[in-house]
Amino acid sequence: MINIQHLERDLSLVREKSPLIHNITNYVVMNNTANALLSIGASPVMAHSVDEVAEMTGIASALVLNIGTLDAEWVRAMLIAGQAAAEKRIPIVLDPVGAGATSYRTKVCLQILEECKPSIIRGNASEIMALVSSNVKTKGVDSINSSESALDFAKILSQETGSVVVISGQTDYITDGKTTETVSNGNTLMARVTGMGCTATAIVAAFAAINPDMLQAATHGMAVMGISGEMAAAQSQGNGSMQVHFLDELFNMNGSTLRNKIRL
Amino acid sequence: MINIQHLERDLSLVREKSPLIHNITNYVVMNNTANALLSIGASPVMAHSVDEVAEMTGIASALVLNIGTLDAEWVRAMLIAGQAAAEKRIPIVLDPVGAGATSYRTKVCLQILEECKPSIIRGNASEIMALVSSNVKTKGVDSINSSESALDFAKILSQETGSVVVISGQTDYITDGKTTETVSNGNTLMARVTGMGCTATAIVAAFAAINPDMLQAATHGMAVMGISGEMAAAQSQGNGSMQVHFLDELFNMNGSTLRNKIRL
Amino acid sequence: MINIQHLERDLSLVREKSPLIHNITNYVVMNNTANALLSIGASPVMAHSVDEVAEMTGIASALVLNIGTLDAEWVRAMLIAGQAAAEKRIPIVLDPVGAGATSYRTKVCLQILEECKPSIIRGNASEIMALVSSNVKTKGVDSINSSESALDFAKILSQETGSVVVISGQTDYITDGKTTETVSNGNTLMARVTGMGCTATAIVAAFAAINPDMLQAATHGMAVMGISGEMAAAQSQGNGSMQVHFLDELFNMNGSTLRNKIRL
Repeated sequence: MINIQHLERDLSLVREKSPLIHNITNYVVMNNTANALLSIGASPVMAHSVDEVAEMTGIASALVLNIGTLDAEWVRAMLIAGQAAAEKRIPIVLDPVGAGATSYRTKVCLQILEECKPSIIRGNASEIMALVSSNVKTKGVDSINSSESALDFAKILSQETGSVVVISGQTDYITDGKTTETVSNGNTLMARVTGMGCTATAIVAAFAAINPDMLQAATHGMAVMGISGEMAAAQSQGNGSMQVHFLDELFNMNGSTLRNKIRL
Repeated sequence: MINIQHLERDLSLVREKSPLIHNITNYVVMNNTANALLSIGASPVMAHSVDEVAEMTGIASALVLNIGTLDAEWVRAMLIAGQAAAEKRIPIVLDPVGAGATSYRTKVCLQILEECKPSIIRGNASEIMALVSSNVKTKGVDSINSSESALDFAKILSQETGSVVVISGQTDYITDGKTTETVSNGNTLMARVTGMGCTATAIVAAFAAINPDMLQAATHGMAVMGISGEMAAAQSQGNGSMQVHFLDELFNMNGSTLRNKIRL
Repeated sequence: MINIQHLERDLSLVREKSPLIHNITNYVVMNNTANALLSIGASPVMAHSVDEVAEMTGIASALVLNIGTLDAEWVRAMLIAGQAAAEKRIPIVLDPVGAGATSYRTKVCLQILEECKPSIIRGNASEIMALVSSNVKTKGVDSINSSESALDFAKILSQETGSVVVISGQTDYITDGKTTETVSNGNTLMARVTGMGCTATAIVAAFAAINPDMLQAATHGMAVMGISGEMAAAQSQGNGSMQVHFLDELFNMNGSTLRNKIRL
């Protein structure tokens, strides 16, 4: 369960250290992702050329790999950056956007899992389920926990990969395969703003940059996201104003708000 | 002329069915386009890799081809996706951004028209005029309707291609070459927000995904755009707030607003 | 020192002539840059294909080269467009985003300086310092002005390249190597919005499109940026609302505001 003092400490650390987060992410969300990282106090950089990604990752404190608008050249850059991060023990957060929607997306995610060994994987239920080895899935329901929820798939994926796995949803689940944390903040309006999941991935990376405990870091990131989203939704008339208020709430987040609003 | 009941029915259908709209569009507007589709109740996906566009189009209910920031690789993806859509009879909406500004843009649009046969083409007057076969244009004024307005060119383009053609402007014209619909909503502030035309194209695609009558679908999309833009402009201090209010108005659009605000 | 009447005249000229500004810029900021150019009254176009950049530059009144998310293909397009602009004496404004962060960025900027001879270079202090020839830097402190501030590097860079050089910061410095102008408007919140520097570069280009005196044009652009940013920050709750208010302030900027708010 989240220790509120650790959460407050980590928020302060992000603000104090302003870690550089290297994002190889999709075109749709780059602007929002960069602004959300600035809101929370981190330093974003977006760079995707194979001529510089290894060097850029080398000066970063965390690497985000987001396949939202992938193509062959960007995947090549992701693998180079991911390997550079792995060698230097820089945490990698993978966002498997649309895994399962096309076979190409699933295949690329599995390649990133294999070659880069991300510290954290964050997706929605169907994306996470798409990454569990078909071996497990074809064995059918009996081979996995009887409740067969997405959380069971997350635990299996975590055990298969060694990554902390986050499923975003009404309740967020964060698991290392043994221990599972939950965050119950958030609002349905978040799903009507494009790239909110991608923003969550980047915010998780900001916490992973300053806390070596990946289960804690991912949980802290999701808590800050959910609380900001909930407070923003309460002031919004639609998904347009939601985007604006969300960044402002993230910008003004503090320990007192965290303590008052967190729902585990 | 628009039948208001059909317009209301189609808005409800978009919200109920939440059709998946596959966009191969430009970098400038991807975020806005995705958010506008979420506002109206559709599901956006952006994907451009030649390794997945055919498969992605195959699960979509409409395809948007927007050449705003085209290059050779993206055009290749557009043609593959367009052919996949044509084979599966998924409606294609083409946005010929900047046609006529460079010869490359005009050439690519003509190739898309030839190879993909879009259901709907939406552009401003000069873009539509650039797509009419030079054969007609060089014959001079006498060969076309004596008023020689952009609408005449739209009708000719529609007859040449079989596509419904939409010209955005102070009055929007929507024509299948024989019947022409008009929408007179909107506000000049819309032209000061980048990508409003591209958003119109995507919203038209959302309606084309749930109504097989392309003239109706395009007209309904333009009506919802114009009314949202008009209501947003009334609350805006400039093009910054306009973007935000526009999405909120689209998000909150309902039958009663449509009935009260429509100007044909 | 800024002549307020010249500044007002230039703002009017941008609004009246609505110059076409061709941007080859980064994915993160394209939407903001386009909107800021529309706010001030200019006409933005984004185009990067090697198949059209020379033709597009040929119809533009200024060219922005911004390397924020560069790769080999985009650099090729920048060099082609830059040479087309140089031949036609269209002003080029270079934004060396992240120069010094990776060797690739520094190398590409030096190639653009060499082959395209930009009229104006706008960056922050570390980016500008990264572009000064290593020859000067390795000669050490004594070889340059004793105060060894970033401004000294800007002057040297201007002398080496013939470009007007702008350093953005709490005080903006604009120098042609001999004369140096300053603008002291702005607010620290601007640095928390992604792409504010890139927007400054584009706004400077809009002024360069209508005033052949590059030192004046760059100073006027930075003045309008700083005043808009300062006024927007006074109304903002965070970096989300800042983005919105900034565009609105730019949109509503007028001579009276310029006169009342300018701080040199």
